[in-house]
Amino acid sequence: MSTATETAIEADPRLPIIRITREFAATPGQLFRAHTDPALFARWVGPDAAGTRIEHWDARTGGSWRYVDHADGEEYAFHGSFHDVREDRLVQTFTFEGFPDAVALEEMTFEDLGDGRTRLHIQSLFNSYEARDGMLSSGMDVGVNAGYAKLDGLIEAGTL
Amino acid sequence: MSTATETAIEADPRLPIIRITREFAATPGQLFRAHTDPALFARWVGPDAAGTRIEHWDARTGGSWRYVDHADGEEYAFHGSFHDVREDRLVQTFTFEGFPDAVALEEMTFEDLGDGRTRLHIQSLFNSYEARDGMLSSGMDVGVNAGYAKLDGLIEAGTL
Repeated sequence: MSTATETAIEADPRLPIIRITREFAATPGQLFRAHTDPALFARWVGPDAAGTRIEHWDARTGGSWRYVDHADGEEYAFHGSFHDVREDRLVQTFTFEGFPDAVALEEMTFEDLGDGRTRLHIQSLFNSYEARDGMLSSGMDVGVNAGYAKLDGLIEAGTL
Repeated sequence: MSTATETAIEADPRLPIIRITREFAATPGQLFRAHTDPALFARWVGPDAAGTRIEHWDARTGGSWRYVDHADGEEYAFHGSFHDVREDRLVQTFTFEGFPDAVALEEMTFEDLGDGRTRLHIQSLFNSYEARDGMLSSGMDVGVNAGYAKLDGLIEAGTL
């Protein structure tokens, strides 16, 4: 069965924003769980070679999170806050601790397409074009696409 | 005694950012306390006519806050997260609950000028120019200037 699994990753022409759009064969509620349940999140986020260890996770409005990706003997830590957690919308901050002064503001919405399909929209806002373009040229697309392929696998397996 | 109490409130020409700069006759540590101690914060933030009731306050990296301003029988609620809390830098999210889908990302630094003086820098990032310009034209300068005048008063009184 063919499913639309292409991920669009686009730079806004007049704002320091990256927009990501991707369809999934899942309901909005399933995608919400994939992004808020720490055990599920750790199973799909990031590149294929990396494992993810959740250090802290409190997916409520006003809560926060921290996780560590480990690959090839290296560790990469990330932390952020859950500014708003609603069934249809997540607003989070995001810092890669290798650049501890950098921070992005992420808004994520789950668009119900019906028939058990959902379009995920992510808008990631940076405080400079340099930071935004540095993220775009970092190879982030590899990790994003690999992660969503793993998430597709969890959906197909009925894990969500 | 004359002190430099002019507040600069400026729109960035190429980013959806408001920058606020203001000097205080206080040390960086005193300004940090003024922004992280809830009892102190409630005494100076906002317009003269408003009182502030802190509903929730956890000024640590990964913590969050919520407060309610009350004036003329009306209440205005705000909430956000403390993404990073360091002695020289605060990074927070900010939502006025009257516009619950709007969110700004604030970065605040305390520049030590020596001789017990500090320059406060605030950078407030929005996800659109319309949201940024709406904030600028909302009369925010009245509340900002009134709040900082009250903070000057707390500093002069030795409260910090």
